[in-house]
Amino acid sequence: MFGVTVRDHMLVAHSLRGDVFGPAQALHGATYVVDATFRGESLDGDGILVDIGRAAEALHGVLAGLTHRNLDDDERFGGRNTTTEVLAQHVADRLSQQVSAGALGSAGTVTGIAVTLHESHVAWATCEREV
Amino acid sequence: MFGVTVRDHMLVAHSLRGDVFGPAQALHGATYVVDATFRGESLDGDGILVDIGRAAEALHGVLAGLTHRNLDDDERFGGRNTTTEVLAQHVADRLSQQVSAGALGSAGTVTGIAVTLHESHVAWATCEREV
Amino acid sequence: MFGVTVRDHMLVAHSLRGDVFGPAQALHGATYVVDATFRGESLDGDGILVDIGRAAEALHGVLAGLTHRNLDDDERFGGRNTTTEVLAQHVADRLSQQVSAGALGSAGTVTGIAVTLHESHVAWATCEREV
Amino acid sequence: MFGVTVRDHMLVAHSLRGDVFGPAQALHGATYVVDATFRGESLDGDGILVDIGRAAEALHGVLAGLTHRNLDDDERFGGRNTTTEVLAQHVADRLSQQVSAGALGSAGTVTGIAVTLHESHVAWATCEREV
Amino acid sequence: MFGVTVRDHMLVAHSLRGDVFGPAQALHGATYVVDATFRGESLDGDGILVDIGRAAEALHGVLAGLTHRNLDDDERFGGRNTTTEVLAQHVADRLSQQVSAGALGSAGTVTGIAVTLHESHVAWATCEREV
Amino acid sequence: MFGVTVRDHMLVAHSLRGDVFGPAQALHGATYVVDATFRGESLDGDGILVDIGRAAEALHGVLAGLTHRNLDDDERFGGRNTTTEVLAQHVADRLSQQVSAGALGSAGTVTGIAVTLHESHVAWATCEREV
Repeated sequence: MFGVTVRDHMLVAHSLRGDVFGPAQALHGATYVVDATFRGESLDGDGILVDIGRAAEALHGVLAGLTHRNLDDDERFGGRNTTTEVLAQHVADRLSQQVSAGALGSAGTVTGIAVTLHESHVAWATCEREV
Repeated sequence: MFGVTVRDHMLVAHSLRGDVFGPAQALHGATYVVDATFRGESLDGDGILVDIGRAAEALHGVLAGLTHRNLDDDERFGGRNTTTEVLAQHVADRLSQQVSAGALGSAGTVTGIAVTLHESHVAWATCEREV
Repeated sequence: MFGVTVRDHMLVAHSLRGDVFGPAQALHGATYVVDATFRGESLDGDGILVDIGRAAEALHGVLAGLTHRNLDDDERFGGRNTTTEVLAQHVADRLSQQVSAGALGSAGTVTGIAVTLHESHVAWATCEREV
Repeated sequence: MFGVTVRDHMLVAHSLRGDVFGPAQALHGATYVVDATFRGESLDGDGILVDIGRAAEALHGVLAGLTHRNLDDDERFGGRNTTTEVLAQHVADRLSQQVSAGALGSAGTVTGIAVTLHESHVAWATCEREV
Repeated sequence: MFGVTVRDHMLVAHSLRGDVFGPAQALHGATYVVDATFRGESLDGDGILVDIGRAAEALHGVLAGLTHRNLDDDERFGGRNTTTEVLAQHVADRLSQQVSAGALGSAGTVTGIAVTLHESHVAWATCEREV
Repeated sequence: MFGVTVRDHMLVAHSLRGDVFGPAQALHGATYVVDATFRGESLDGDGILVDIGRAAEALHGVLAGLTHRNLDDDERFGGRNTTTEVLAQHVADRLSQQVSAGALGSAGTVTGIAVTLHESHVAWATCEREV
């Protein structure tokens, strides 16, 4: 089993609804340092699972649609809380679509994706899914 | 599959019995930077797997029972070597008990725990278990 | 010369006014991982420059007044852009006041403070000042 | 399930053949910070999965055969591109041989190996295999 | 005193002449993770020392002239060993020229530059200079 | 001004005397990840301030005299608290002696040393001195 990971980041504002969130119910923000891992069983003839350059571009493109925004106003989340877990799932789903659409080139062998969002140096969340 | 991780640390003294440990047979100590990951298949209605605040409190509570101690005198280990692996298992077991006891609130969906203890910048150990 | 550093973090929302900020003119947010360094020429009789526990409490107290807020609504900044540099200066000034007020105990020997705010894994800013 | 990880590094030169590699088709180089994880279900009587000291020596020995070389001239790769994925697999295979040969001592319980090569602060690749 | 730092990286091949370099006399390579710090006494009316976006672009431009090359063939170094220290100085000199040429916009207040090249997780070198 | 830094670590046990230390008055321990920086104004004919290999050996040698010990029993500290600051000073003093004794070879240009001891991911201390 192989995995290739690229790292990027986004800067967003949001608030979270629900007593469980305490002070995070107020409008605040976060830097999410985002690690996206592409997984598969075999390498292609060039010796790669995915092209790291294309993988980085794919992740950057997904984060460009989220960074420097107030996610409370973002219709894509349909009123759902934009928790670290939900955002990780959103990024993983978008990357899965890109892989399926061939945006990563010869990445026919990618069978899984894991996305980790670091919200600080002491907390992070991951979403893993099949492609 | 989702995972939520929180990081904390503890400072302990101990010695290790057995020729394999070489100089670590003498009384020494370590800072363990501890990452605790809670895993589960689905999020609750608030969009979380576990409340990160409660998860951090649970981990801090477990480490409070270990930090600033000489583990050689600690009856809970019953003479067993307090290696990095054994300590990771101890923390994972305690956190599993807390999840089962409902200490993490709506965390009914937590099905697994992984605990990593970093003993330096070049060595760490992990224990994974089901809840 | 000695230095003692403690690390904490805060989660804020804000927007920045001025063409130079490009997309950061929109409301967004950031996690700032904050390193506060206390500097001085000599140690006290206990062998410390400052008590790390008290230093961590002082930093946590300053950040508690900033985290989980929309800084655009914060009168303390009087309309000034809350850039990483400005926030670093704000935290350094508050910590300097605490040292002067004796909040760090025997820290009579602290002569300087440096505060670094990490806004991501690839960008950070520092403000250094005398006490 | 337990895992024990040790970290080391190597400095190599190489070039990569194939249009997909763009500027990396020219001779260049990389520092690979290498994490080797040994996995197994149970600990031995000393409370360890593997001796961290021996694990570090095993990894260092494998990397000593690669570091400070131009991998384009290395017959072991038989003309195959020495991508991050291929190098991770090479290191994992060598460590698996060492475990099977008993070089890690009582490591009869090691059932899997994962090797991660960090090529920068924003990209890394992993190869996992059974022993 | 303020400082603003941006991080990027480059991948180069080179060899070093002189007995002191031991195995590094052979052709090898390195990833240099590069931190460039711009320093100055005061902020401009927007509340910044330099625009972090422009600072990142300036650093990226300098590294683009070095990455994915064999530095042994690079006439700019005139046969000088391309040690970590020499490369740090080269990057600091180029950034100083850019600041002097106005490439960082309102950065009239930048009075110093520090460049750190990390050659691995256990070794790095810095060059500091005035602008 | 140039700086060259190498990183290593040590594992020690100790206790600290004085009410200010709270629970750290009990016997406990710490991993100190240690960064030693050598500073000087100019490079030698090989293009280096110090040989990184020799610098790493010098640091490793100093730490070998401290690691895997109970510092409460160590006569070199003469009953002084072995705080992070005191240990940083001890390491800096030993390295300064080594530089003066020529152990770092052509390091005649080293004029200063800074030693940072990281006691956890959220606290560290530095001692800087001239050679």
